Amino acid sequence: MSTLLINADMGESFGPWVMGMDEHVMPHVDLANVACGFHASDPHVIRRTLRLAKAHQVKVGAHPSYPDLVGFGRRSMACSPAEVEDLVLYQIGALSGLCRAEGLWLHYVKPHGALYNDMIRDPALFEAVVRAVKDFDASLPLMTMAACDTSMAQEIADRYGINLWFEAFADRAYDQHGHLVSRRQPGAVHEDPKEILAQAITIAKGEPLTASDGSKIVLQADTLCVHGDNNESIAAIQSIREAIQALGSQT
Amino acid sequence: MSTLLINADMGESFGPWVMGMDEHVMPHVDLANVACGFHASDPHVIRRTLRLAKAHQVKVGAHPSYPDLVGFGRRSMACSPAEVEDLVLYQIGALSGLCRAEGLWLHYVKPHGALYNDMIRDPALFEAVVRAVKDFDASLPLMTMAACDTSMAQEIADRYGINLWFEAFADRAYDQHGHLVSRRQPGAVHEDPKEILAQAITIAKGEPLTASDGSKIVLQADTLCVHGDNNESIAAIQSIREAIQALGSQT
Amino acid sequence: MSTLLINADMGESFGPWVMGMDEHVMPHVDLANVACGFHASDPHVIRRTLRLAKAHQVKVGAHPSYPDLVGFGRRSMACSPAEVEDLVLYQIGALSGLCRAEGLWLHYVKPHGALYNDMIRDPALFEAVVRAVKDFDASLPLMTMAACDTSMAQEIADRYGINLWFEAFADRAYDQHGHLVSRRQPGAVHEDPKEILAQAITIAKGEPLTASDGSKIVLQADTLCVHGDNNESIAAIQSIREAIQALGSQT
Amino acid sequence: MSTLLINADMGESFGPWVMGMDEHVMPHVDLANVACGFHASDPHVIRRTLRLAKAHQVKVGAHPSYPDLVGFGRRSMACSPAEVEDLVLYQIGALSGLCRAEGLWLHYVKPHGALYNDMIRDPALFEAVVRAVKDFDASLPLMTMAACDTSMAQEIADRYGINLWFEAFADRAYDQHGHLVSRRQPGAVHEDPKEILAQAITIAKGEPLTASDGSKIVLQADTLCVHGDNNESIAAIQSIREAIQALGSQT
Repeated sequence: MSTLLINADMGESFGPWVMGMDEHVMPHVDLANVACGFHASDPHVIRRTLRLAKAHQVKVGAHPSYPDLVGFGRRSMACSPAEVEDLVLYQIGALSGLCRAEGLWLHYVKPHGALYNDMIRDPALFEAVVRAVKDFDASLPLMTMAACDTSMAQEIADRYGINLWFEAFADRAYDQHGHLVSRRQPGAVHEDPKEILAQAITIAKGEPLTASDGSKIVLQADTLCVHGDNNESIAAIQSIREAIQALGSQT
Repeated sequence: MSTLLINADMGESFGPWVMGMDEHVMPHVDLANVACGFHASDPHVIRRTLRLAKAHQVKVGAHPSYPDLVGFGRRSMACSPAEVEDLVLYQIGALSGLCRAEGLWLHYVKPHGALYNDMIRDPALFEAVVRAVKDFDASLPLMTMAACDTSMAQEIADRYGINLWFEAFADRAYDQHGHLVSRRQPGAVHEDPKEILAQAITIAKGEPLTASDGSKIVLQADTLCVHGDNNESIAAIQSIREAIQALGSQT
Repeated sequence: MSTLLINADMGESFGPWVMGMDEHVMPHVDLANVACGFHASDPHVIRRTLRLAKAHQVKVGAHPSYPDLVGFGRRSMACSPAEVEDLVLYQIGALSGLCRAEGLWLHYVKPHGALYNDMIRDPALFEAVVRAVKDFDASLPLMTMAACDTSMAQEIADRYGINLWFEAFADRAYDQHGHLVSRRQPGAVHEDPKEILAQAITIAKGEPLTASDGSKIVLQADTLCVHGDNNESIAAIQSIREAIQALGSQT
Repeated sequence: MSTLLINADMGESFGPWVMGMDEHVMPHVDLANVACGFHASDPHVIRRTLRLAKAHQVKVGAHPSYPDLVGFGRRSMACSPAEVEDLVLYQIGALSGLCRAEGLWLHYVKPHGALYNDMIRDPALFEAVVRAVKDFDASLPLMTMAACDTSMAQEIADRYGINLWFEAFADRAYDQHGHLVSRRQPGAVHEDPKEILAQAITIAKGEPLTASDGSKIVLQADTLCVHGDNNESIAAIQSIREAIQALGSQT
């Protein structure tokens, strides 16, 4: 991957409840992280989301989660690694089943919410997710967080022959380790569209970011995570994508 | 398929709750209908069930259901055909994901409980299930109920190029149409092991059964459904299998 | 009850998913039908809804449903009367538990969706719901559909000493039996705000409505069901309420 | 409470799945901790359990849990205190609704599994549970773990005017702080019926126990938790109860 790909969470509606503006975001992203029914989505919502991705030629990834619908997968659960391996396999498979009906391929796996955060901190959980990906299809990349030091993740992925895709954020401040500054800290989230665009371009160019302590850090990122919950954020995604594509055409 | 295959529902435990005697039944069947999480089973139980099927070289089929865990999928739900198509695809896919981890192939699909009964009565639901099977893998057979007249099912399946496997029961009385006599009628369920064995052999030979009204009916059956909830029923399964295998070796 | 009370479904959000405009509707209604967690709502959403009802001095009713979250309780399920009785009791109790924490009383029970429709057609289900209400608190009224002939409902309710509240709709056409015209028929739903307001006033006055076949029918209604999903419908609720209150002050 | 009461978890079946031997245990206990549907039980199972408790004049307590059915409430979940308060209220209310139908009173609250353990370690969670109990009915005792130092729990309960019932275990080893020795340690669980009976009698008399480091500790216990999963454990419960009753009649 030479160009920074744009990914967004999709298919987060459930039954009669709508979440997100998938129809408006899908045209502007490269990768759709599709919820698999454990934190959001249901078979019917998945099907609709896949049709939308197909119409816009967006690559589909599985977005598996802890089994916590009411908590939207945002609450850590003390699942064992063996449980995590099986529930990730179940969700990848379920999404893949609906992909077949639309003639789509599954392209990658990105765990959601608390599972995403927990696996970064816990090698046993990271390995459980890697094992699930490998067992399902060893050619699928696993998306995880970019950071200055990703050696733990890399070592485990290498052991199983799994490719990692590192993702960065344009609207979040980073500390000197390349970790996201906690939302509880002031300045953790960039509000200014120009600042967000500038950070996206810096990441896309592979140039150093200024961390929260003033130091310079470099994040190796394959993809940029964006959110489109309203018209402004969708406009921001468009600006970022145009800027990245302009970079790509220069080279 | 020349020999009558024996199928049984498997993987019906859920979380900490155990149902069935899978370890004791699995050695004596040919086909395991594995619950997919909507009426029973969970990712961990499915994994365990697949390992057991693998150890005994039993072919695995998906056993999808209405989304009704507390009702065990036994209560009709007014799901639309489009909903049924998607929820069947989801469940086949989920099971298939775990099959991959065990190096197993999915061999067929058999809807469960109320969905199984409803699809026989409602061509739109039958077509929805057939579409799900076709979209997932058109080479998978769909298991449905044997009867004197299966033309509705056959016509729909033919239209989509799906193979049907018809199943019969050794422990249930049939009426003159080859439909199961309702459990509310006296004599609907055979209790005598000899009678059950005799009916199994008759079905296996393709010979006529005596219906509840005394008439003779012939059921074209590819597979026989058995249940093993206790030691007696497991012994009955063994007897039936030996008898069927003895028939097979005669020809 | 001499004045026609206005009721609306409330607390239909779930986890992170928002449904309805409860903050904008609550000021304009008399009765809030609060979802109990089986088709919508969760403990946290219920609590928030109760606080809102309390702030606007709106009476709270339980809005129990079949256990079908993804289907929003709109799909019939073949639950037995005994199952219905217990699941209604569970939901009334759960809502009542949260009412206690806000110092609120539960004022009535109104079944939701498919359960509401099914109980009108099936005396055994109607009786199951009446039994649940009686067992919880025999002084709670049960809300059900107004019609020309409500003798089945009345007979069962009388047997258990339960008071019925009949509800009518201002935006739906009625047939000559006082049943709602199916949404599949043209003209089933009134779109014109003036027509809706006129029908509300007619019902409030107890005057005859013109049924879809041109005949005149009289509906004895205690309450009017309204929906407020957007600004127009909320304005309609306000107009209806003002008109009803104007009627009340005349007498 | 002068006599040590015997409590056991009850109503842990779910839908078609049976857990426990409630019919055989109920005659031998004083207090039934009834699951409320979040980790086990459903409205129908609750109803059946309440009838059984009523038949044996056993006092019913609510046994609320994290919302984790497949994990049986045994996995910690990062629920906020406000979420815990509301979900405990919901569950107490639901059980109470079914109690009304059987003419039973709810007598106490005992959190289940991971919630029970987490609240002991986290004062904010303990306070959340205490608030739920107080808001529902300030006269209900809250059951929690006995230990040498229960000042945190006592201070919070006192602040809300809630009575605590401390429970001890006859079949578990204690450390010098009066905490249960982890099951991962050798000797954590007593297997010898005589040893279990002896520990029960020591606790009932209020005499010192020998901790795992050999020191002597005194546990102030109001109730003893027992489990009856098989014939041996049910016989053990009977022996313990007879011994406790014999003590009571001596004084």
